[in-house]
Formats: sequence, C-alpha cells, structure tokens
Amino acid sequence: MQSHSIKSLLNGQVDTGQTVEIKGWIRTTRDAKGFSFLVVHDGSCFDGIQVVADESLPNYSTEVIKLFTGCSVIVTGELTESGGKGQNLEIKADKVTVVGWVENPDSYPVQPKRHTMEFLREVAHLRPRTNTFSAMMRVRNTMAQAVHQYFNQRGYLWLHTPIITASDCEGAGDLFRVSNLDLLNLPKTDKGDIDFSEDFFGKETYLTVSGQLNAETYACALSKVYTFGPTFRAENSHTQRHLAEFWMIEPEVAFADLNDMAALAEDFLKYLVKQVLDNNADDMQFFNQFVDKGCVQRLETLLDDKFEQVNYADALKILEKANVKFEYPVKWGLDLQTEHERYLTEKHFKKPIVVKNYPEEIKPFYMRLNDDKKTVAAMDVLVPGVGEIMGGSQREERLEYLLNRMKAHNLDEAEYKWYTDLRRYGTVPHSGFGAGFERLISYVTGLSNVRDVIPFPRTPGNIKF
Amino acid sequence: MQSHSIKSLLNGQVDTGQTVEIKGWIRTTRDAKGFSFLVVHDGSCFDGIQVVADESLPNYSTEVIKLFTGCSVIVTGELTESGGKGQNLEIKADKVTVVGWVENPDSYPVQPKRHTMEFLREVAHLRPRTNTFSAMMRVRNTMAQAVHQYFNQRGYLWLHTPIITASDCEGAGDLFRVSNLDLLNLPKTDKGDIDFSEDFFGKETYLTVSGQLNAETYACALSKVYTFGPTFRAENSHTQRHLAEFWMIEPEVAFADLNDMAALAEDFLKYLVKQVLDNNADDMQFFNQFVDKGCVQRLETLLDDKFEQVNYADALKILEKANVKFEYPVKWGLDLQTEHERYLTEKHFKKPIVVKNYPEEIKPFYMRLNDDKKTVAAMDVLVPGVGEIMGGSQREERLEYLLNRMKAHNLDEAEYKWYTDLRRYGTVPHSGFGAGFERLISYVTGLSNVRDVIPFPRTPGNIKF
Repeated sequence: MQSHSIKSLLNGQVDTGQTVEIKGWIRTTRDAKGFSFLVVHDGSCFDGIQVVADESLPNYSTEVIKLFTGCSVIVTGELTESGGKGQNLEIKADKVTVVGWVENPDSYPVQPKRHTMEFLREVAHLRPRTNTFSAMMRVRNTMAQAVHQYFNQRGYLWLHTPIITASDCEGAGDLFRVSNLDLLNLPKTDKGDIDFSEDFFGKETYLTVSGQLNAETYACALSKVYTFGPTFRAENSHTQRHLAEFWMIEPEVAFADLNDMAALAEDFLKYLVKQVLDNNADDMQFFNQFVDKGCVQRLETLLDDKFEQVNYADALKILEKANVKFEYPVKWGLDLQTEHERYLTEKHFKKPIVVKNYPEEIKPFYMRLNDDKKTVAAMDVLVPGVGEIMGGSQREERLEYLLNRMKAHNLDEAEYKWYTDLRRYGTVPHSGFGAGFERLISYVTGLSNVRDVIPFPRTPGNIKF
Repeated sequence: MQSHSIKSLLNGQVDTGQTVEIKGWIRTTRDAKGFSFLVVHDGSCFDGIQVVADESLPNYSTEVIKLFTGCSVIVTGELTESGGKGQNLEIKADKVTVVGWVENPDSYPVQPKRHTMEFLREVAHLRPRTNTFSAMMRVRNTMAQAVHQYFNQRGYLWLHTPIITASDCEGAGDLFRVSNLDLLNLPKTDKGDIDFSEDFFGKETYLTVSGQLNAETYACALSKVYTFGPTFRAENSHTQRHLAEFWMIEPEVAFADLNDMAALAEDFLKYLVKQVLDNNADDMQFFNQFVDKGCVQRLETLLDDKFEQVNYADALKILEKANVKFEYPVKWGLDLQTEHERYLTEKHFKKPIVVKNYPEEIKPFYMRLNDDKKTVAAMDVLVPGVGEIMGGSQREERLEYLLNRMKAHNLDEAEYKWYTDLRRYGTVPHSGFGAGFERLISYVTGLSNVRDVIPFPRTPGNIKF
C-alpha cells in the first residue's frame, strides 16, 4: 500500500472512508478506557493527525499503550471525520506497527512540553522534532524555494561562486583560513613567513565572505545572475544577529543602476513574504501565536507598503532633529548604527525604507562614485523590527575611478587584474545587492536569534553537530 | 523604454514592426557597403540577434564601424523579418549607443574564434562570453533549478547542512582544515600538539565532505529532506573527474530502503535530463554538434531505458566471464574500478545500471548490514560514457549493529553520540544517495572535464579567480 503524507490527508486529498497508511513519529498519546489517542507527525505540515487505536488491536496491551512521544510507527486504518475538538479528520487504526521505540522515555530530551531555545540548541539533532523547529524548517524551505523561483522566472541564472578564495572581497573583517599544511611542520620562507606556496592551492586561501566579485564577471557576460550559497565571518561575535557560517543571496545585474536595485530588493522581499503567507499559513499561525504576536499582520502590512527612499544626507537631518538621545553620534562620515536605523524605519517612516548614497569613505572600494564626488551609490534596506536586512550598490564600472579607489584602499592591482578587466572589455553599469538568508527568515518568523533559523548554527565555540 | 531580452525577441514574444530595445555585447561584426551587421548577445539564449546598422546613423562612421567583439551596446530599432541565412529576425537600428569599448581589441583574450579549453580556464572571468560557457551556464542553471523543482514538488525540504564541521563523515580522504589560529604563533598543549581549544570553534575543524550525517537527523524528524551545497576534497588529484570544491545533492528519506533509492535516483536523473532537453534545445544542439556528437540521442535513449539492477556478486561473475583484459583484478572484496564499471554499463548491459549490495569491508560504517552478514545495502548508479554518477545506501538503523561497525572502523562513540541517538529515539529504516552535480552536468553536456562545468574550478594550485 502506498503511504500518504499527513498533509495530503488533512488537506482533503483523500476521501473519508478510504483505508490509508501513514508513517511517522508519535507526538502525544492519551489513553482512555479501552482505547488510545495517538497524534502522529511526519513533518509534511504543522499538525499531526490523530489516530484512534482501540483494545481490539492484537498488540494493544503489549505495545500500543506503551507508545511514547518520539516512537516511530506505521499506521493503517480508515480515514474518518473526527468527533474531537480541534481536528476534522482522524484515522481509526486497523493496524499499528511500532518501528522504533524510545530508549528510556523519561530521559528522552524532547519531551512533550515547552523547552527553552537555549536547551534545544544543545540538542540540535533532535530539535526538528519540535513544533517550533519543524515549522521553521518548512518556512525556511518555502523561502529558499521562493528565492530560486523568483530569479528563475525573471531570467536570472543561479551562479555557484567559489567558497574557497584567495581574495577577501571587501577587505572586510576576519577570515577563516583554509589549508592542508601540516601544522606541526609548517614550511617557512627565508624571511621566516609561512610558505603558502606549499599549500594546496599554492597561496594563502580563505572561506569566502561574498560571491559578488565573481558574480560580476558572469553578469558582465550573461546580464542577470544570482548567487545563493554559504558565506563566512570569523568574527568573535556573540549577538543574536551573527553566525560564523550563513547563507547569502546576491543578485548581480548588468545595465542596472542603484534605483533598479532598490526596486528589485523591494519586489524580491515581498515575493518571499507572499510565498510564506500563501504556503505556510499553519506554520505562521503558530509563530503568530507563540513566538512573535502580530507577525502575520506585520508581513501583510509589508506587502501593502511602498518602501520609502531617503538619501543618507537626509536621513542624518531626520536623526539630528529626532527628540531621542542616541548612544552613537550622528555625523556625516559615520555609518548608521542599529539604533539609528531602527529609529528611521520604526519611528519616523514607520515602514521599510531604502537609505541611499552613503559617504565614500565608509564604503568598499567597488561602489560607484556619485557625481558629487563625496558619496557612493550604495543602499541599505531597513525594515521595522530588524533594521538592516539587505544592502547593495551600483558598482564602479569606470576603470580609472575603480583604480583610484583601489589605490585608496591599498589593494594590490595585480591581484584584482581579472576584476578590473571587466572595465577594460565592454564595461557596463551594473549593480547588485546581498541578503543574509537567516536574517530574512528571522524577520519573517519572528525567531529573533539567527541560531534558531539555521539547522546547525556555527558560532564561536559551537561545532558539536 | 523597457528593454527586451534577446530570447523573448527570438521566441516571437514581440511582433515584428515594433520598436524594441536590447542591451548586450557584440559577438561578431561584418561591414558591407554603407551598413554593418552586428550580432548582439545578452546571455538569455544561445543565439545573439543580428542588428543592421546603416550609415545614416549619426555615429556610424565615428563609432559603429569601430565596434568589435566584446563591446557593450544598447540598440533600439524595428524588429523585422530577416532576409539573411540562419536567422529569422533582425533589428533595423534607429540608434546604437556604445556603452563600453574594448581596450586594445587585438589583445582581447576572447577573440571571435575557437579557443582551447585550457586557454579559457586561464581567463575564467571572461570565458562566460564564449558560446561554450554561456551554453554550459544555462544548462547548469536549468539542472540546478530542476533539482529544486523535483524535490520540492515531491514534499522534500531543502536542508542547509553545515560547511564547517568537526567530523569527517566517512573517514574518507583528505580534508581541508578551517582555522583562524595565528600560524606564526600556534598554541601548543603540554604534549606539544596543536591546542585547538584556542581555535575559533574550540576544536579542530574541516570543510565538509558530505552533509549526510546531518541530513539524517532531519529526515528522522521530517521524513524527506535533501541537501544541495558545496562539498570538498583535499585530494591531490589531477583527473578530469575531480574538483577540490564541488556541489553535491543528497536526498535522505525516512521509511525508505535501498530499492526505493534506486528508483528515486533513476527518476531524478531522468527528470533533470528531460528538463534540459525541454528547456535548452538550442544549447544542447551546440553541444551535440561541437562538443559531444550524439549527446542528444544519448540523453533521449536514457529517458526510454529502464535502468538495470544487478548485485555486486553477479556483476563480478559477468566481469570474470568477460573476454577483456582488465588492468585491475576482479575479486570479491575489491571495489569496482572505472574500467569494470564502464564494461558493465557500456558493453554488457548497454544502458544505465544500479549495482547493489557491496561487501561490507569496502564501504563506510553507516551502511546497513544485509542479512547475509557479508554485504551492505549500498548502491552505485553507473551510466554509459561516464561510469559512476550517483551512489547511495540504506543506513544502519539498528543501534547495536551501528555501534559494532563504528568500533570496527575505530570511530569514537562519544563524538558520534548525536548520530547514534537517532537509533535510540524512534529509529526508522532510512536511505539516501549522493550525486555530484558537476558530474551530472558533465554527463549531460559531454564536457568531459569537470573544470569546464563549474564557473571557477578549484583544483590543486588553481585559485586565481
């Protein structure tokens, strides 16, 4: 007999009266006189389905009444309307096969009760068995599929940029080194430095912090590409918003300027949100009730809002006039801090905003210098409740300007020869942005710690699984 | 004016007689008396579109006749039926705007002529501007999207398993170390070993070779998952089939056995092939003509073939009877070599085959011991022209058997506590397979070197881009 997913049963894809088979894990059990109620879950949707098993089953007293949360079972029986509260359908079991028991039920880590998020991180291999993490995983999947659908439908090619790299892209922050040198017997140069010419790639290599520079080479040949892959930061950061390993989405578009990117980022974010609202109503109902009250309303509002656009210079004026004491100074040439960003999006505009045209000196070398010679064509997308959620720029497509900015950033021209070649051979205006996937999920679900929206989080000291 | 992709024009989505705008790069130019033919390409499909620019254009003599392969342009004009051979539609230009010139056209690396694959690897940042690599990239994209479509439509969740890991999964081969210790000042233990407790994660860490063990934890909670992410091998291998960094697809399914996996692998491969044949007819026509004559026929045959299944033991008998002198011995307990695999699939069965049930001693610890106690429930999928293209197994779901095999493989039980927990708490039969994405693309396109089916290949000594 072909098994059914519980989702297909609860969605009404099978008529009542039919005999069905399900396979899954016990979530809860309740015994009454002469029969037991078993809620069985298989991950296909938020709810499990209730199984009614009565004492006429041959293994009722030997097995069924001993079932416990976490046991795996195969159940066959008739799909029927349910008399119970809170569910419409249930299965009247003809047969309950116990596939796997739970060793020492009392010490099973995922008991049918509320656990702290901190505890569940300690049992990351078992936390997908909880409501919160199975719902997170389905929402994460919907969003990940939506990323591909969005770009694929619009003619973008998914580009796999390299994970191991010899360049550090932005000159940004701490890098993980990748090597297979023998640490107890390191080759040295005459000067006493490490001789990376003997390493696997013949150079010092790192884990990528961004696929952007590589993506530009393909955008400047095939017009529209995007990356969706893992990126890394070796920052010793212990905040709710930072992971050492996270997934990033980076579209890169030829013949596109900063305004095109602002429009793309807005449309993209709304598409992802709409997909979740349309496909994960049950999971979002759970987040709305138990994790982030009002998150569904917040997302519905986002879909209706037209994002506001504001120049960095004008944002400074708003902040200077604000009747708020900020911890960090508000001054031309300083980057906006989270407190500033949240004031702008939450208090002043009360909607998502795009801040554009930042001072040149606080932004990476590849961003395009504006005609004022003071600012670059950079943008940050800020949303209420989170702050910055995406960031992008128009890239400097003019060779002489790019070389000047590289010099100012002390970058080795020879190392970036391939990158500057794009400006030598049929250069085009082009632009892109980056979106941290976990921050997007955090925004959508209201799970405020990014450790809880990725299956196996990597942070300083955490590598257990 | 909204621009059009060249694909949308050549597909007939715009009526002739309309004024259209295109943006792209010059592929070839040809001058006649009083006008020029420019073929413009934008990556949206295999062909470029021919632009007819005549001397009445104000910048004809100053710019248009100086255009060269690689220059970027914006063209507006009327879409018309073409009188020329080999194309149906062309654009009669009203305006040709040169966006970017090519510096020193004579030394532009991607001249309009045939280049060797070896040369193009040296200019990996420019090779997407060639027919071969833009076609490869579109086929790669179709296959990557098809992976997600296939699993998403069937209720699988895309799982992002960690890239940085403390376990080496299979005890398999050479690992890249990930670290941010200061190599010139390494912390040591009392015994003189490296003190990894001071490293970022507090342990020695590596780049993953497989997401399987992590994927099992989610399959044993949510039933059906798959990974699609980068994996790594620090093997000093210089063959056409090996990359240090490549993308792998790994479905993992609860309540599934080895036969389910053989069926899934067959169905999955056929789905990918069908998507390419349906969506990339132009690109495949190019590969069929210039790269791998007959590859389209080969793929169409694959769709019709029912994969043959054969036990390892029976495969040995076939090889022993074969009237062929093999380089490597054919003997129980030895793994099949490429020459054996290719004999089986190409000469004997003449179709794709699944070899199953290999001797326990040549397979990793997590594979399920068969009732004969000699073999494990492993499979390899072999296809003509390539040999092994996918490999999988049923996982050992019985705790005592798993612990025995771990002991035999000298694995530290404590390190794998989380993995064995899956067998303590509601264990289920479960199975999965792994497919190297680049080998799949290599198979489909006939591009025999996997360095040519990934944008920026990583092999020993190669890290330039």
